[in-house]
Amino acid sequence: MRIDEARPYVVDKLKYALNPSSIAVVGASRYPTKVGNKVVSELLKWGYQGKIYPINPRADKVLGLKAYPTLRDIHEEIDLVFIAVPAHLVTAVVQDAVAVQAKVVTIATSAFKEIGREELQNNITQYLRDHQIPLIGPNLVGMGTPYAHFNCGFIPYLPVEGPVAMISQSGANLLAALGTSQMNHFGMSFFVGLGNKADVDFSEFIEYAQNDPHTKCLSIYIEGLDSPQAFIKSCQKVTKPIVVIKVGGSKIGNKAAFAHTASENPESDDYYDQVIKEAGAIRAQTWQEFLDISLALGYMPPLKGDHVVMVTNGGGAGLLSCDHFERCGMPLHELKEISPLLESRIRAYMPMFGSPLNPVDISGTASVIQYKGAFKQVLRDPNVDGLLGAICPTAVTDVNGVAEAAIEVYESCKDLHKPFIMICQGGQECHEAIMKLRDHGIPAYPTAEQAVNAMVALRKQAIK
Amino acid sequence: MRIDEARPYVVDKLKYALNPSSIAVVGASRYPTKVGNKVVSELLKWGYQGKIYPINPRADKVLGLKAYPTLRDIHEEIDLVFIAVPAHLVTAVVQDAVAVQAKVVTIATSAFKEIGREELQNNITQYLRDHQIPLIGPNLVGMGTPYAHFNCGFIPYLPVEGPVAMISQSGANLLAALGTSQMNHFGMSFFVGLGNKADVDFSEFIEYAQNDPHTKCLSIYIEGLDSPQAFIKSCQKVTKPIVVIKVGGSKIGNKAAFAHTASENPESDDYYDQVIKEAGAIRAQTWQEFLDISLALGYMPPLKGDHVVMVTNGGGAGLLSCDHFERCGMPLHELKEISPLLESRIRAYMPMFGSPLNPVDISGTASVIQYKGAFKQVLRDPNVDGLLGAICPTAVTDVNGVAEAAIEVYESCKDLHKPFIMICQGGQECHEAIMKLRDHGIPAYPTAEQAVNAMVALRKQAIK
Repeated sequence: MRIDEARPYVVDKLKYALNPSSIAVVGASRYPTKVGNKVVSELLKWGYQGKIYPINPRADKVLGLKAYPTLRDIHEEIDLVFIAVPAHLVTAVVQDAVAVQAKVVTIATSAFKEIGREELQNNITQYLRDHQIPLIGPNLVGMGTPYAHFNCGFIPYLPVEGPVAMISQSGANLLAALGTSQMNHFGMSFFVGLGNKADVDFSEFIEYAQNDPHTKCLSIYIEGLDSPQAFIKSCQKVTKPIVVIKVGGSKIGNKAAFAHTASENPESDDYYDQVIKEAGAIRAQTWQEFLDISLALGYMPPLKGDHVVMVTNGGGAGLLSCDHFERCGMPLHELKEISPLLESRIRAYMPMFGSPLNPVDISGTASVIQYKGAFKQVLRDPNVDGLLGAICPTAVTDVNGVAEAAIEVYESCKDLHKPFIMICQGGQECHEAIMKLRDHGIPAYPTAEQAVNAMVALRKQAIK
Repeated sequence: MRIDEARPYVVDKLKYALNPSSIAVVGASRYPTKVGNKVVSELLKWGYQGKIYPINPRADKVLGLKAYPTLRDIHEEIDLVFIAVPAHLVTAVVQDAVAVQAKVVTIATSAFKEIGREELQNNITQYLRDHQIPLIGPNLVGMGTPYAHFNCGFIPYLPVEGPVAMISQSGANLLAALGTSQMNHFGMSFFVGLGNKADVDFSEFIEYAQNDPHTKCLSIYIEGLDSPQAFIKSCQKVTKPIVVIKVGGSKIGNKAAFAHTASENPESDDYYDQVIKEAGAIRAQTWQEFLDISLALGYMPPLKGDHVVMVTNGGGAGLLSCDHFERCGMPLHELKEISPLLESRIRAYMPMFGSPLNPVDISGTASVIQYKGAFKQVLRDPNVDGLLGAICPTAVTDVNGVAEAAIEVYESCKDLHKPFIMICQGGQECHEAIMKLRDHGIPAYPTAEQAVNAMVALRKQAIK
């Protein structure tokens, strides 16, 4: 339901949703195939340290925890009520939640507005608003944060720790990102699936994220905005970078978005372009770009100018990159234009058949020492704004060694505040190098175009 | 050097480059860090069964194999001479290769035309042409095929077996693809890095690929075409799908392409668009798209019409897909437009809050049985041209089970000749599902947009 701006009581209480001391899981089944069972088992599995109260009138225990017939039987403070019972039972549970003065209510249950039950959804929402209890959902997948070992929902993964807060209307895509997090070390501060966002809206999680110390970048997946003005206002308050992906712009997607999360998209895609621009956020088009630029904005400072130098041991990666830079409207400049001295300095770190253009091709025979020297020369040159490094695994490339050299140079040049992004295109050892680089705060990617998208986003962040 | 069309003696002799009975490695060093050592060690490591003759005047043995001072000392038939000695020594080796009547010569050595030594390169080329010995290179990384356990070059990977022949001017990007092959089960029939392509050109490998029984799709990475007419003619002869990525179109990339593989790009990018179109090939823009559509064209028949139905357990993946279909100029149609009966049939396989639009959202609770039923209904409907399935790992999704169901349905419907593509967006179990699906000939991808690109390419293949 529409809001004009983020409500302070909601923003304030969201800490009970993302860092609760106690959780009641309503509909906590004893049967492992049931979603209500999964919620409790995931909480246990990832090491949640708060109290867990399974609510199940037909069980004494669920997964070894004492079960309660209703919320009213707990007689302890409840920060978060997570509801996973069929839709027709939800109203009664919500009444109990109000009665026991729960801090936040989350309704995971589907089959509300998205299948036409708007009145039921609105009644529950208004009732909770009247009691100033934030409602997250309904029709959502869950939320969590790796910093509290907290994974609450139908979610098989807890992400690795990192800078990105993901606020997603879609549960499925959130799950995809969480899976990616573990597998590719895509670091997250917290995550939440908003579902139908009957009550708590983007704007309130956006303001929460601004205050969250672990969040360095906000990544927002939107299917529809009920309260665009609140969204814009909250984004404008935020000093951290914001990346948005807005879907449902296609003719058929519009209908699908309603069926999915009851999102209404009466406005054109251009309208959303405008909203996102006014909000001061960066818009991603594909899912991969969304993830890639979020990571870069989370780890790296903005790119102050367009003097990016690329250092690669593979000409092919260099060509893919400079073509894509031009496609993105930010063509590379030749090295001699950027810094005439750099060209001669960098020659010391390449064989005679290397190329000191830009991309700087230090050739397939490049050693760790040559990489390190070239990286240092580039980053320390006062005319250079950012460095894009690329590793291609020839038979003589020490992929891990180059990754470690990149980390060393990055650490030693951190006070220069220049973006440093890496491409590691290849097999398993490149995948491992990417993970190591990410663990040390360097955005690293398996393809040239992904890295270029990331660098271009850092420039957009500087000039927006 | 320019050719007017593929030369039959070259096309015929390329079998000695990709399936040789004997190889002489000139410059085979005893020292593991040297490239000449790597060539021999990689041949041994991947199980090459032919004869290997290391050429090294200062060694009796290299990696346990008897070494020879020169090619002339071998006194056995030599199919392939692989040269990895410094540029100034190459001419003498080539003279030896002619003297011993080698079938094919490969020069891996760099520092020819790409650094200005065009005359030297041309002299060697003409000399070998006069003797009708194909020259591959110089300045290349190598070649091989998993079907002969043959990995010849500075290449740390042998790809997994599969449908894609990769003909790449760039060594670095070829290596990236080979790394991807093992890690992501991107199946290849053979691969070759052309380097400066002084003699043997794209067109000749293209015609070779047409005759190679394992090749189902040709994937060609181009930095510059010396002989565009020969390229067009050969492509037009080929009945298999061809995917092309052409780089170096950017202003700065143009210079970098010359420095990399001595490629000259006097023509505009539009010119190459025209060449690729005339050739009947499909052009990819990014590296990822290049790989993704190659795999799809290698495994799947063309898409006969644009009646694609998507079945997903995650609305988010559905929305990303339908937006991207529209972006690619091939919007999805609603299910009721495609097949009114299908809508009611498919309802049997989803909960009440699922959505029978298109994408068909069978919801996050979808079981293997529901997936299997929905897949079958879609594929068997005579009005449906292709199926896009998506798995999103909710806490109750049996990802492996759904992948196996997809394989079963695909196998049972193979005679319908309808493309079936899968999206598995998530963590490790999704990655494993992607590999299993690919191993069974189903193109599967971790993001929606990649899968959509693949489906759209299958349509382009049908209408080109």
